Amino acid sequence: MTPVRVTVWNEFRHEKKDPAVQAVYPDGIHVAIASGLKAHSDFSIRTATLDEPEHGLSKEALAATDVLIWWGHQAHAEVSDEVVARVKDAVLGGMGLIVLHSGHFSNIFKVLMGTTCNLKWREANDHERIWVVEPGHPIAAGLNETIEIDREEMYGEHFDVPAPDELVFVSWFTGGEVFRSGCCYRRGAGRIFYFRPGHETYPTYYHPDVQRVIANAVRWAAPVGGPKVVFGNAKPREASKA
Amino acid sequence: MTPVRVTVWNEFRHEKKDPAVQAVYPDGIHVAIASGLKAHSDFSIRTATLDEPEHGLSKEALAATDVLIWWGHQAHAEVSDEVVARVKDAVLGGMGLIVLHSGHFSNIFKVLMGTTCNLKWREANDHERIWVVEPGHPIAAGLNETIEIDREEMYGEHFDVPAPDELVFVSWFTGGEVFRSGCCYRRGAGRIFYFRPGHETYPTYYHPDVQRVIANAVRWAAPVGGPKVVFGNAKPREASKA
Amino acid sequence: MTPVRVTVWNEFRHEKKDPAVQAVYPDGIHVAIASGLKAHSDFSIRTATLDEPEHGLSKEALAATDVLIWWGHQAHAEVSDEVVARVKDAVLGGMGLIVLHSGHFSNIFKVLMGTTCNLKWREANDHERIWVVEPGHPIAAGLNETIEIDREEMYGEHFDVPAPDELVFVSWFTGGEVFRSGCCYRRGAGRIFYFRPGHETYPTYYHPDVQRVIANAVRWAAPVGGPKVVFGNAKPREASKA
Amino acid sequence: MTPVRVTVWNEFRHEKKDPAVQAVYPDGIHVAIASGLKAHSDFSIRTATLDEPEHGLSKEALAATDVLIWWGHQAHAEVSDEVVARVKDAVLGGMGLIVLHSGHFSNIFKVLMGTTCNLKWREANDHERIWVVEPGHPIAAGLNETIEIDREEMYGEHFDVPAPDELVFVSWFTGGEVFRSGCCYRRGAGRIFYFRPGHETYPTYYHPDVQRVIANAVRWAAPVGGPKVVFGNAKPREASKA
Repeated sequence: MTPVRVTVWNEFRHEKKDPAVQAVYPDGIHVAIASGLKAHSDFSIRTATLDEPEHGLSKEALAATDVLIWWGHQAHAEVSDEVVARVKDAVLGGMGLIVLHSGHFSNIFKVLMGTTCNLKWREANDHERIWVVEPGHPIAAGLNETIEIDREEMYGEHFDVPAPDELVFVSWFTGGEVFRSGCCYRRGAGRIFYFRPGHETYPTYYHPDVQRVIANAVRWAAPVGGPKVVFGNAKPREASKA
Repeated sequence: MTPVRVTVWNEFRHEKKDPAVQAVYPDGIHVAIASGLKAHSDFSIRTATLDEPEHGLSKEALAATDVLIWWGHQAHAEVSDEVVARVKDAVLGGMGLIVLHSGHFSNIFKVLMGTTCNLKWREANDHERIWVVEPGHPIAAGLNETIEIDREEMYGEHFDVPAPDELVFVSWFTGGEVFRSGCCYRRGAGRIFYFRPGHETYPTYYHPDVQRVIANAVRWAAPVGGPKVVFGNAKPREASKA
Repeated sequence: MTPVRVTVWNEFRHEKKDPAVQAVYPDGIHVAIASGLKAHSDFSIRTATLDEPEHGLSKEALAATDVLIWWGHQAHAEVSDEVVARVKDAVLGGMGLIVLHSGHFSNIFKVLMGTTCNLKWREANDHERIWVVEPGHPIAAGLNETIEIDREEMYGEHFDVPAPDELVFVSWFTGGEVFRSGCCYRRGAGRIFYFRPGHETYPTYYHPDVQRVIANAVRWAAPVGGPKVVFGNAKPREASKA
Repeated sequence: MTPVRVTVWNEFRHEKKDPAVQAVYPDGIHVAIASGLKAHSDFSIRTATLDEPEHGLSKEALAATDVLIWWGHQAHAEVSDEVVARVKDAVLGGMGLIVLHSGHFSNIFKVLMGTTCNLKWREANDHERIWVVEPGHPIAAGLNETIEIDREEMYGEHFDVPAPDELVFVSWFTGGEVFRSGCCYRRGAGRIFYFRPGHETYPTYYHPDVQRVIANAVRWAAPVGGPKVVFGNAKPREASKA
């Protein structure tokens, strides 16, 4: 079986500067996410970070990526427009994209959604209970009815995104908010999954259910090998128009 | 790898009575469809027909089925209500269902859709050109932009079904009609795919692209192993309500 | 302006037997709902109840109804199959249908949805906070970001319905649950809105925001006067097939 | 009744240079479209064109617009980024947007969709038959099952847009193509309708059904007065988190 080639991208700045984040993710969030996927022998995993040349996302790197996982937060503006455009083209061409947590405000997510992607937030150790609302969805494989996360940053509605093509999860927060926390989109030949949890000061990416969701999403978002689409001036298919 | 257990169900009446149909499908449409799937070593295939006891769809048979393929036409009314209810329960519990062509008017499709499932039709050797409108969908894997079927029965809009959760194909017909010919639905924990072509007097089920679509749909509709859902009276999850 | 002809249907049984319900809705839930709509001069309102002949839903009554509002709970099984079929036909023909609270288990809702419509529930005075997740939807007109209901019965996911065509509201409950509480469906030429709140022992239907939602839903669900659809054998539209 | 304030925007270049277009639309496509709306006394209509200051779309102009209709073709690149951003903000804030025909390649449509919006095309006098596939949709009000356009430019699938939230029309073309020709989107608090017909060399905007669709779409896309959404840091709604 051909492996799914996964690139885990992380802005990797908090972990270099903030001791509280270092304590949780000493090698970076990307390494934690990649480790969480290693049990899957059908995945081939690499990582890339903002401060690498071309942010680690050269044309060659993207051409060798089936699914790109994206974590960013404080440095969205430092991702070059050229790389954003390149990732967008790759997604529309069929590459899967999994956007995590604060990646909601990344330029790549915003240009693909066409909306502000804004939301409510609060850092206050809320309990997050993620309810599965689409139990037959492949991204819900192997889960229980809920994912329980003891402490997390809160994200609340309204989440200004297009209504998801498939809504898999809805979160409950202690402080009284709800959030559409697992959102599937098809764009061009590619598929996009937004998954809410994962603030940098919490050990969320070590949570087995969170790891399972990301792995499920990788499989769901992998390219399918659909038709080569042709655009532009087209001759008629029917003789009467020839 | 655990195989996907496929049951190909056919009403199998035209083929017993009508020489024109016998000439095309001497062993029955179900055998032709099953043969078209045999190249896939990850499928385990059986067939079932209307005139078998319990229509070949006993509790045991359904419990051993991951994806059920359904072809029926002139004998929809002979499928017992009990079996329809049993199939419906199985679908809502996670079994995949692929409804082909005239199966649009089967009771199992109608009870799952909640609408009349009515449409326009004409037997007049129209050319059917099936356009892929969702090139990133797994059911479009391995196809070209169109599937060309030289002669087929026409089905035309309005097709009275719920708007599909995912619309994969739209058909063009010589006589001036269009049809939403590849429609995906999620119902309960199960997934349903309606695929239009396949009139009994045409060799449609020998068409390699049609066979490919059915195989793709089997994989797409196979159960995912999602959460066991609990209904009814529920204790609070939060201590403050205990 | 032609008024929208609204029929408010109520099973009207709790209010006859249970003093706790009588205390809240002395004239019946239908009268409370109808009163909440009376400020809208463009509505023409009547009520109907289970124990009337044909449940107050004769052919003539339905023919004179643009939008039907449905509240039922303990007597779903007493609604005759004939009336359920009649209401279903009316909806598919263009009549709007608003299903409230425990009406999720009515036969009319179940046959239109095609699923079990099951859910979790608890009578424990939870606070319900209904979040608007689609702020541009007509059913959200005139609301704030949330509707706050001090005490209500809890309904929790998984709610076994088809993914709504438009999801307008998501509820948060004290006990830790969430619920897709405002769900829009298009079926045939008709539109259906499910709205969660309204347990018989709480004064929910006197809540101004709940009344506003119901009024908004009436306008949204009113028939649009679309094309008359023709089904069955169809002549070709193009001369080459004549 | 407060009128719906409509701005009809046209690039207005073909009509100044090309005699074939002048012959059809001597005063410009915008004037033809505006004239087609004048029968509706509840609309207040103005026009705006590319070569006006700020393309006729100043902040004040947009603030006084409920629904913006957009026709552009050869000069998409001349619409300033500032105005595109301004229109996008207005749409997300609740203004309706109706994009016509070659407007599929306008920057405003592309940034709202997030995809290439590319398609197939041919100028060859195809007959276009637009089928209603959602007969209960307000945009289909007053139509027959089809809209027949004798001669039009062909647009064919694949149309690289997100799957529409509501698909109202599908077109059939003589040359063998189909097209999703009436596509509804909700983005932010605004609503967007893409409608396919309207090549500059054909008298399409004088067609009564085309005029009716545009008028229906204006009503459908008008702002609803939903909740004011608040983003950013949020205090808890529940005391336990205070």
